[in-house]
Amino acid sequence: MAQIESILAQAPTHRDRFLLTRLSTEKFAALNKTIAHRIDYDPVSQTGIFGAAKQIVAASSVALLTAGTSDIPVSREVLRTLNYYGIAATEFNDIGVAGLWRLTEKLEAIRSHAITIVVAGMDAALVSVMGGLTRGVVIAVPTSVGYGAARGGETALSSALSSCAPGVVVVNIDNGFGAACAAMRILNIGR
Amino acid sequence: MAQIESILAQAPTHRDRFLLTRLSTEKFAALNKTIAHRIDYDPVSQTGIFGAAKQIVAASSVALLTAGTSDIPVSREVLRTLNYYGIAATEFNDIGVAGLWRLTEKLEAIRSHAITIVVAGMDAALVSVMGGLTRGVVIAVPTSVGYGAARGGETALSSALSSCAPGVVVVNIDNGFGAACAAMRILNIGR
Amino acid sequence: MAQIESILAQAPTHRDRFLLTRLSTEKFAALNKTIAHRIDYDPVSQTGIFGAAKQIVAASSVALLTAGTSDIPVSREVLRTLNYYGIAATEFNDIGVAGLWRLTEKLEAIRSHAITIVVAGMDAALVSVMGGLTRGVVIAVPTSVGYGAARGGETALSSALSSCAPGVVVVNIDNGFGAACAAMRILNIGR
Amino acid sequence: MAQIESILAQAPTHRDRFLLTRLSTEKFAALNKTIAHRIDYDPVSQTGIFGAAKQIVAASSVALLTAGTSDIPVSREVLRTLNYYGIAATEFNDIGVAGLWRLTEKLEAIRSHAITIVVAGMDAALVSVMGGLTRGVVIAVPTSVGYGAARGGETALSSALSSCAPGVVVVNIDNGFGAACAAMRILNIGR
Amino acid sequence: MAQIESILAQAPTHRDRFLLTRLSTEKFAALNKTIAHRIDYDPVSQTGIFGAAKQIVAASSVALLTAGTSDIPVSREVLRTLNYYGIAATEFNDIGVAGLWRLTEKLEAIRSHAITIVVAGMDAALVSVMGGLTRGVVIAVPTSVGYGAARGGETALSSALSSCAPGVVVVNIDNGFGAACAAMRILNIGR
Amino acid sequence: MAQIESILAQAPTHRDRFLLTRLSTEKFAALNKTIAHRIDYDPVSQTGIFGAAKQIVAASSVALLTAGTSDIPVSREVLRTLNYYGIAATEFNDIGVAGLWRLTEKLEAIRSHAITIVVAGMDAALVSVMGGLTRGVVIAVPTSVGYGAARGGETALSSALSSCAPGVVVVNIDNGFGAACAAMRILNIGR
Amino acid sequence: MAQIESILAQAPTHRDRFLLTRLSTEKFAALNKTIAHRIDYDPVSQTGIFGAAKQIVAASSVALLTAGTSDIPVSREVLRTLNYYGIAATEFNDIGVAGLWRLTEKLEAIRSHAITIVVAGMDAALVSVMGGLTRGVVIAVPTSVGYGAARGGETALSSALSSCAPGVVVVNIDNGFGAACAAMRILNIGR
Amino acid sequence: MAQIESILAQAPTHRDRFLLTRLSTEKFAALNKTIAHRIDYDPVSQTGIFGAAKQIVAASSVALLTAGTSDIPVSREVLRTLNYYGIAATEFNDIGVAGLWRLTEKLEAIRSHAITIVVAGMDAALVSVMGGLTRGVVIAVPTSVGYGAARGGETALSSALSSCAPGVVVVNIDNGFGAACAAMRILNIGR
Repeated sequence: MAQIESILAQAPTHRDRFLLTRLSTEKFAALNKTIAHRIDYDPVSQTGIFGAAKQIVAASSVALLTAGTSDIPVSREVLRTLNYYGIAATEFNDIGVAGLWRLTEKLEAIRSHAITIVVAGMDAALVSVMGGLTRGVVIAVPTSVGYGAARGGETALSSALSSCAPGVVVVNIDNGFGAACAAMRILNIGR
Repeated sequence: MAQIESILAQAPTHRDRFLLTRLSTEKFAALNKTIAHRIDYDPVSQTGIFGAAKQIVAASSVALLTAGTSDIPVSREVLRTLNYYGIAATEFNDIGVAGLWRLTEKLEAIRSHAITIVVAGMDAALVSVMGGLTRGVVIAVPTSVGYGAARGGETALSSALSSCAPGVVVVNIDNGFGAACAAMRILNIGR
Repeated sequence: MAQIESILAQAPTHRDRFLLTRLSTEKFAALNKTIAHRIDYDPVSQTGIFGAAKQIVAASSVALLTAGTSDIPVSREVLRTLNYYGIAATEFNDIGVAGLWRLTEKLEAIRSHAITIVVAGMDAALVSVMGGLTRGVVIAVPTSVGYGAARGGETALSSALSSCAPGVVVVNIDNGFGAACAAMRILNIGR
Repeated sequence: MAQIESILAQAPTHRDRFLLTRLSTEKFAALNKTIAHRIDYDPVSQTGIFGAAKQIVAASSVALLTAGTSDIPVSREVLRTLNYYGIAATEFNDIGVAGLWRLTEKLEAIRSHAITIVVAGMDAALVSVMGGLTRGVVIAVPTSVGYGAARGGETALSSALSSCAPGVVVVNIDNGFGAACAAMRILNIGR
Repeated sequence: MAQIESILAQAPTHRDRFLLTRLSTEKFAALNKTIAHRIDYDPVSQTGIFGAAKQIVAASSVALLTAGTSDIPVSREVLRTLNYYGIAATEFNDIGVAGLWRLTEKLEAIRSHAITIVVAGMDAALVSVMGGLTRGVVIAVPTSVGYGAARGGETALSSALSSCAPGVVVVNIDNGFGAACAAMRILNIGR
Repeated sequence: MAQIESILAQAPTHRDRFLLTRLSTEKFAALNKTIAHRIDYDPVSQTGIFGAAKQIVAASSVALLTAGTSDIPVSREVLRTLNYYGIAATEFNDIGVAGLWRLTEKLEAIRSHAITIVVAGMDAALVSVMGGLTRGVVIAVPTSVGYGAARGGETALSSALSSCAPGVVVVNIDNGFGAACAAMRILNIGR
Repeated sequence: MAQIESILAQAPTHRDRFLLTRLSTEKFAALNKTIAHRIDYDPVSQTGIFGAAKQIVAASSVALLTAGTSDIPVSREVLRTLNYYGIAATEFNDIGVAGLWRLTEKLEAIRSHAITIVVAGMDAALVSVMGGLTRGVVIAVPTSVGYGAARGGETALSSALSSCAPGVVVVNIDNGFGAACAAMRILNIGR
Repeated sequence: MAQIESILAQAPTHRDRFLLTRLSTEKFAALNKTIAHRIDYDPVSQTGIFGAAKQIVAASSVALLTAGTSDIPVSREVLRTLNYYGIAATEFNDIGVAGLWRLTEKLEAIRSHAITIVVAGMDAALVSVMGGLTRGVVIAVPTSVGYGAARGGETALSSALSSCAPGVVVVNIDNGFGAACAAMRILNIGR
């Protein structure tokens, strides 16, 4: 924390912007108030943005799917990271495959994006289903949602890696930040 | 093997019938020819039925799904076990979720059965999808199909246990015999 | 929590009933009092039922066994879920196999139910024993009871899946809700 | 092999006796014939005894149980080791708990032994059941029998270690030799 | 806790004695004072003895070894359990093999006991060393002492099971109670 | 095999092309000769291409890196898959980080490609190093090269997922085909 | 704690010095003040030195590298241990391979030390890179830094053990003390 | 193999020497005879040395210990690698701790070497014992010797990493080559 404060305290001089991830509400509450007031904090994703907001210029090219509402904190980390870098994304929440109609209703809207990021825990079945329904890029973010055999996200991770839909790529468990970075690496190609 | 031969050699006296599972083609080829000729052997499921075939009396109340063609040996073990006990089942092969239309085309036909047995390896995503599409009984048989993160069926097993569709039940990896026995325990209730 | 409160606050309009699982005493205590008063809360199973109680119409067709008293919270989750949907069940507690007479004394009573749900942690030996003592449906719910080599329920889970009694089916560790749903899927067949 | 042959070739001089474990039929067949002829070889347990047979003096104080016939090779390794050292044991085979009557029929006979060695794979449920049925010493030998979630004996091992019957002790997977040695350490006390 | 209190409150009527294990200082502090005063509580082993102390009649036949001082809580659970049943034991603490002289100094004293219980975490090397230094019974109790690759006792457990000293037997991680019960099963033979 | 032959035998009518992966030299040798002659078989990658070769039209936009020569079979599977679909790729072999100059020498050439696919086993350290040296897309293919703690590719897989370079994406162990498909999904965006 | 206090209270008599590792700030705060005042406590490494500081005589022969700032607590434990025994070391912090220039800038300075200790979590890629850049001794200390697939340091550990740079040696996860002891064993040779 | 042959065929021109590890007897037998005749092949360690033998100049500074005779192949890989580079080493075979006198008899001889390499499988208890008996450098090489809970060397590896003797360092399972390289990195310091 002392480290964070010391970096941020020197920020005005440097005109820097910072994205802080995994900043729990407890850590945020413990920050020096002067600094805290300059942070746009989001408790859901546990992210803080220090410095000026960036203009989101592009139309949304990223569809951001969650299988259940418990996956939203990770998905929100993706969104906040993309927004921090000026990239738009469209959320499609709670569309897991146990109620398949929720997905199929929104399929056309999802497919209009170049990249689909699937955030899912437990068995992460949405990854394969979505991978089969689009020819676009699919990035899977397994989450630690679930208990018992879900093993803190290990099952979702292995499931995404073993996906029967070819060409799906995977990042670490709960790694919303990494998925956003991967999307930005990809979007840079088309430019 | 000696054990199997000695049991079967005494069978006529006892009017017994036997179901032999996990009888590889090598083991079957090594059997005493007199005995082998009295066995109805199926190399796909590696099962042998010794003794008279049983009349399959009931209309099919079991839908038997495979996600891919590699899952068929396990599915066939289910079928052979059910048939051995006189129970009919209907096969729906190669309908994994990476090509969702293959499943939805046959959905009505599948739903007309009281019990659905889903045989799937890799990420076993078909389990959750099917679990969400029927209110009937769903028995998952994870298979050892796949490599790397599929870990010999462990991922399919954990995935089925963590299914987002409530009320799905699971048997051991590649345990087609067990799934058939479970179906028969269930079918006994309705009688 | 905000999410739960907002859903429940709108409930009267919708005449909805809700079953809340994994609602810890801490979470329950933190709920808005107006809403909390309308919840039938059970601290043992950590479940809450919001809305009118349902008439339990059928005679009990589900025997609910625990190996030890530590397994009761999970077993109670099964019971509460079944009751919520109007299904009766009969509890047989603390009848683990280390004292086999406790089981055999009650065997006849247990066997009079179509479905037996076995809730057991540690080595889950009761699953196989019970699986061998009934031809009815047996659903195993491994629990996280135990320490060391019990590995938070993993041993009970693997043990149930490897059961030497054929046709036993298994749900996730501590998944009382899932076992109840499975029982209801099965009971629907006979109707 | 060269090592074994060289040791055994020098044996007459030393009046030594040797117990060879894990001596596969292939290894045995490859042995120098002069040496092989002096070995009492048992293909089931894959053990060879070189040198004079020892008089088995004591009445049997060890009951040797197997859950299924597939566990017999390991059980036979126990027996051969005990016999090699002049200790008697009584076999009770194929009495797994899925057919509980098989155990209860023989219970009185089993209980008349000071030590019970339980050889069981898969879920090793016989360990806990037997542990609850005797106040004598119970040594569990988990075996690698089973597939899938049996994980080469790991489940039987964890299950035995997590036994709900207090005071059961455990040796390594398939370690019949170790169980026999443990029994002999114990029997030495009473002498 | 309510359960413990209710059982103990009825105890005088039944003239019962109780051994309570895994009774943390927090749980003990929360007990009804009337009951608490009748418990002989030991915070090191987290055990409580309710009811009259039992006369320890026999000379010590159990040597109780710890590899390090961090293993003492588990070792003390063994001791308290034995004492509860009237069995004496002799402690030899902090004699791990990294300082081999500590063990060899006491070797003669240790060997004078029929049973040696080795309580050790981390690599549990003391188990094999002691197993090689005595022909008596050796019971290993792996402990959860250590970090990283010690994996909460899993390494000590696997190490004890793989011991190069034949005939060592093993109980679950931190299972002092089980080791004491095993010792008592063994001591019963010689009587 | 019969299945493959039957599909391919009907191919001329359908003007189909097929990519066969994981076709071992043994399986290939066992194929019907008429069919085998029409297959362009590569024993290194164990892939076969049935039907007309496709013109590789585009300039290479994929850099294909291997850490060691043992990783080449998997890398070659990537190349063959890309080529099958008409995509060019440039190989950079044996440039693992234990000899860092091998990588830095070729860095400029690598960076001129939009996508870098890193094929690496053991500790897969090349993934992070390369991830830090380019802002382009990095797809990691962990391989099963290595022994002991390499655990059949599990360490390379976990290492790639835990990469300290943000935005690296990962496919299953040895999944060259999947990496190629992922690259093609990405390349489609820019078109 | 009582144990620590009692040992330290007797220290003046014995003229002893003590190094206390894994002494959390909570434990330190709970110490008897008289004793606490005589301890040189470092909250970063959670180490305390009781007794007189030792003169650091030698020029630094140990380079101490961290991949990221989160690895510093473990690295500082190495440093404190070395200093306690009078050995100098030079810190090179936050030079992980995702920004390779940070390492190469300092390479000459690092190489001037006989021993390089690499403290790294996550994928521990710095171990192999550094192992390839020096012919001196390289000791890897994997840390528990990271989440998900980093698995509390297991991935860093396996990665270091599977390093493609030959001759790298490894100690337990977060075991800064052990790495320092290893360095001292090595430095003793040259003297 | 083709690769090996092609490299070696060009060797005379380059005056190169090569050390080939993990060269099985099958692979060696399949080599081109001209090349094979120029290789000094050792079937125990499965190593081949191509080119002139190097003069072993130094007195032995490396003690090479094996716990059992099954560990000798790995130990011999250490020896052959050291010899290849002109370093002497002294073997102390079959001195595992289950027979402690075997070690203590040779202790003085072992301690006269600057570096002790301990090659041990199963529980690898010799690592800690030796680590406590010398202040010199101790390098542990866990081996895949053992079965069941030995888990192919994983237990020996974890055991060595969790050693209660501080400052022991570890290399990968069966990695004799790596241990030799580590020894050479260390010996370079003293020169």
